[in-house]
Amino acid sequence: MAYKKKAVVVLSGGMDSVTTLALANNQEYDCYSLTFNYGQKSISEVDAAIYYSKKYKCIEHKIFNINFSEFSSSALTNNNIAINTNKSSQENIPNTYVPMRNIIFLSIACSWAESIDVNNIFIGANAIDYSGYPDCRENFLESYEKMINLGSKTGADGGKFNIFRPLINMKKIDIIKLGHTFNLDYSRTVSCYQATKDGKACGVCESCLFRKRAFIDNGLSDETIYI
Amino acid sequence: MAYKKKAVVVLSGGMDSVTTLALANNQEYDCYSLTFNYGQKSISEVDAAIYYSKKYKCIEHKIFNINFSEFSSSALTNNNIAINTNKSSQENIPNTYVPMRNIIFLSIACSWAESIDVNNIFIGANAIDYSGYPDCRENFLESYEKMINLGSKTGADGGKFNIFRPLINMKKIDIIKLGHTFNLDYSRTVSCYQATKDGKACGVCESCLFRKRAFIDNGLSDETIYI
Repeated sequence: MAYKKKAVVVLSGGMDSVTTLALANNQEYDCYSLTFNYGQKSISEVDAAIYYSKKYKCIEHKIFNINFSEFSSSALTNNNIAINTNKSSQENIPNTYVPMRNIIFLSIACSWAESIDVNNIFIGANAIDYSGYPDCRENFLESYEKMINLGSKTGADGGKFNIFRPLINMKKIDIIKLGHTFNLDYSRTVSCYQATKDGKACGVCESCLFRKRAFIDNGLSDETIYI
Repeated sequence: MAYKKKAVVVLSGGMDSVTTLALANNQEYDCYSLTFNYGQKSISEVDAAIYYSKKYKCIEHKIFNINFSEFSSSALTNNNIAINTNKSSQENIPNTYVPMRNIIFLSIACSWAESIDVNNIFIGANAIDYSGYPDCRENFLESYEKMINLGSKTGADGGKFNIFRPLINMKKIDIIKLGHTFNLDYSRTVSCYQATKDGKACGVCESCLFRKRAFIDNGLSDETIYI
């Protein structure tokens, strides 16, 4: 089965997913970006996804609504649970973990991809300088790729879904350096777990801390505006 | 980690999922049933799911809306594609296949389950007398179970999701016999891919044919009303 060089890119609007989109674009994939409005507190990241989808000339940008708070519990989606900011160790999974988030996102991405004859999926999952979420680890993604090929028409017909996770083993600083090789301007990306509607970051959540560390501690400028 | 004997049961309202619910109930699980309103033509199966959830005293019955036609294409969910009725061979995957349906259903089930401290999931997937969907096969479900334990807090914390698929290798006739051992009355179950709103079956789609063959050819009575 011959496929065109097309890709579905899971795009949150944060640094990692935007770098991944820029990379796929640089590798000359025709990109179809997919963003989830899943009840996240940081809704301004969806605006960032719209901005970068246009910037990188995505063939289509789909924004899909799926309200995780209807079936799961997380500080990231539930206004009654405060985002924990007083820890930085990676010993435990923090309360911003959203159960099965990447599994559901990837599966909707594959469902869409199969319908538009695409077998390449890009996700910006990263297991270095991250919050410890199990669905961002290499062994999970390797297992996911096997599973999706057993459970789909694509796999049953002799094709293969490729779940590309180019950033999985990269440090944040190296992700930024990679982005700079494509002249990626990170100023519109949103990392904060609880950014305001106009995109201002809290500066104290784990995700802000990872970003700050990568930019500021390494002498790079970041135009993120903090509240 | 100690778990109570609780289970989330994926419940479409068809024969297989209702048998699975009855089985879990018979095995003394406290059941939480989960039904998807996913844009299926046969919406009366949701009424069947409501009926059997009450009958089997589910602790909670969640009906989750996720419109697959927003991101995928299938004769089961798209009014512009007729359900193919002129084949009965299992050589190809029919046009009623819904890309990644069971993967997405199971993942939402696991997400809900983890939030309510449940690690047992029941699904009525069956790979005998079925339409050939890849996400109903044992090798897929075995792979799914591995994947979900790598990608979830449950697995990361040393627990384990059990994806129970008790009907996977059973013939339709044996599924009905199993149901009869629990005095399961199948009259309200909906098998038809395009049942009317009041639950009447078309009698010609592949799912109707499997049901008819199992009941009528084996001398069992079935109260299904055909249009």
